[in-house]
Amino acid sequence: MDELAQVLFQLFVLLAATKIGDEIFKRLGQPTLVGEILAGVIVGPAVLGWYGISAETELFAQIGAVLLLFQVGVHTRVGDLVRVGATALSVAILGVALPFIGGFAVATALDLPLEGRVFLAAALTATSVGITSRALDHLGALRTVSGRVVLGAAIIDDVLAMLIVAVAVGMPSGGGVNAGEILLTLALAAAFIVVVLVAGTGILSRRPSLLTEPRFAETPLLPGMIVMLGLAALSAAIGLAAIIGAFLAGMVVGESAERDALEKETAPIAAFFTPFFFGFVGAQVDLTVFGSPQTIALLLGVTALAVVAKFAGSAAGALRKGRARAVLIGWAMVPRGEVEIIVAGLALAAGAFGPDLYLVVVGMVVITSLLVPPLMPPLVRRAEPTAVAHT
Amino acid sequence: MDELAQVLFQLFVLLAATKIGDEIFKRLGQPTLVGEILAGVIVGPAVLGWYGISAETELFAQIGAVLLLFQVGVHTRVGDLVRVGATALSVAILGVALPFIGGFAVATALDLPLEGRVFLAAALTATSVGITSRALDHLGALRTVSGRVVLGAAIIDDVLAMLIVAVAVGMPSGGGVNAGEILLTLALAAAFIVVVLVAGTGILSRRPSLLTEPRFAETPLLPGMIVMLGLAALSAAIGLAAIIGAFLAGMVVGESAERDALEKETAPIAAFFTPFFFGFVGAQVDLTVFGSPQTIALLLGVTALAVVAKFAGSAAGALRKGRARAVLIGWAMVPRGEVEIIVAGLALAAGAFGPDLYLVVVGMVVITSLLVPPLMPPLVRRAEPTAVAHT
Repeated sequence: MDELAQVLFQLFVLLAATKIGDEIFKRLGQPTLVGEILAGVIVGPAVLGWYGISAETELFAQIGAVLLLFQVGVHTRVGDLVRVGATALSVAILGVALPFIGGFAVATALDLPLEGRVFLAAALTATSVGITSRALDHLGALRTVSGRVVLGAAIIDDVLAMLIVAVAVGMPSGGGVNAGEILLTLALAAAFIVVVLVAGTGILSRRPSLLTEPRFAETPLLPGMIVMLGLAALSAAIGLAAIIGAFLAGMVVGESAERDALEKETAPIAAFFTPFFFGFVGAQVDLTVFGSPQTIALLLGVTALAVVAKFAGSAAGALRKGRARAVLIGWAMVPRGEVEIIVAGLALAAGAFGPDLYLVVVGMVVITSLLVPPLMPPLVRRAEPTAVAHT
Repeated sequence: MDELAQVLFQLFVLLAATKIGDEIFKRLGQPTLVGEILAGVIVGPAVLGWYGISAETELFAQIGAVLLLFQVGVHTRVGDLVRVGATALSVAILGVALPFIGGFAVATALDLPLEGRVFLAAALTATSVGITSRALDHLGALRTVSGRVVLGAAIIDDVLAMLIVAVAVGMPSGGGVNAGEILLTLALAAAFIVVVLVAGTGILSRRPSLLTEPRFAETPLLPGMIVMLGLAALSAAIGLAAIIGAFLAGMVVGESAERDALEKETAPIAAFFTPFFFGFVGAQVDLTVFGSPQTIALLLGVTALAVVAKFAGSAAGALRKGRARAVLIGWAMVPRGEVEIIVAGLALAAGAFGPDLYLVVVGMVVITSLLVPPLMPPLVRRAEPTAVAHT
């Protein structure tokens, strides 16, 4: 087989396998993301070895991550962030702060270098909008008070997670970082985010149809993709993560008049690429680290921390909406997802995580994704009795 | 810059540049494909060097070619091929035979090995459905007798070109091929095509909604992509070109009940990937070969041959529709496009073409694409007086 045949075969195997995993988990009523990751473990080097890690397969995975964050950005409207209310803001901030502090403490106890501490802390912060909103929607609770608070908070905590990721990626590996450098990276990241958002949304609010003004652009798709690739490359080039640029690009073009058309056309591209990302995540998992009892203990400990800290922080932030709602909101914020996995991948690539910590974070995402939805129905019935579950 | 930043930057540069080329050529009323290729020349190694040939950028180009041929396949309905009529068939066969013989003769005169002769002959055969149908549509002539014959013939000659490509790719490089081996490759290719088409369309005609039966498939897109990658990999693995599998995959899934949904969802993915293909084509052009008068003479000679042989063959095949229509049909069949370029790329990769012949074929495509549309209006007025041009 020549090289192209090889790559096409690997892409075929991974896409087919992840979709079989998706199918099985959908039939079981479980999060499909978990099915896609497990499919990647099975066809990847750990088990069958039909799919391997190469420059080409990694590129498809990376573009998948870039498109995922671009889509999250398109859904994150600057106006919504301003309007979303004090409760969502306090849920988001406390729900990020507690896991961050907990992750940092654990990483310090593990004696990780500062970079690794920030990465582990970052890898516990962001709620998965996808899993939690699907579960709430299924129970008819997406448009209740609790549902709106959770969605708003989940979006804000994505932004906060991006800021933390920027700091983690910006750190020189090998240690020797001081508070001044951290502040500098934070300032650079904040400046990049603010400049891009202010300039981008400013331009698009003055010319809302700018994306479809060129004649080559019968639809806003390709201008949107150009902005996405450009900002992703720029943000990677100045030492932030590529996904931060992609996320900002999504937020900027999400302000255009053609937002709906853009979302509709981006959906097939993202649907095509994201399985390559989740499958790649599974393929990167090194199962041999399961042989060590320490890794298993670490996985269980970090997962417990991720659940408790997120629940406690988010519920505390939501107390003013009553106890029942605070409990529902806290629980609904627990699932982690793509952001954590991307952070763990960045940490692995930067050498800040070994294969054990990578597996721990991926395992934590899998466990929280599986754990949360089954326990939600009684909490919804108590907190939002008017919600009508889909049957 | 790390490696991901580098690749993202190159993809950004190429997408932005090809779309600027697209824009300029659209405003000039010229084929946008030419604008995209020239943009690739400019940002590629030949001029600016912002975009380079690497495993990753090549993969994006290759996937672009696979998607292009997949789309052509979706548009090629098995039923249409049967119904399209004797005139389209004779136009296609004669319009392929004459350029093939001419190309083979020129390559023999150039003393190319047998493999190179078949490649050069193949690189002159297929009409570009895209350019010619856009030009006819613009003149309101797409639904006239001439228009339907041209479309039918252009589709059939794609199938014939695929067969010839299969033979060319199947040849062992380095010569030593005899008639028996050629027949064997031809038989293998024909068997592959027939088996895939009969089995694929047989399955889909019995279960027309098969593609959307899995629960993961809210739309037929991902099942379609799985079939595309699988057949492309399979066809490359058995020694045919990947694009042949992609073309067949398109023909097969084009028979499904969800054909329209599939076309609509494939469009954004193809729109995203194909600029990377045409840009890559430009980036591969080595301008220094223009320094040689022989190359320029060869370009002009091959282009003249491509125009005259295609025109004469196709017009001869259409004579029963009257002389005016035969002239229009012959001329409308002249533009070449993506298939030729893909063939030239395969020949370059196989070592059958040097950079000079690659440039000659790409240049021939560019010239025929630019030459044909401006001369069409008078021919349409004479042959199809009822056609009403769009203004």
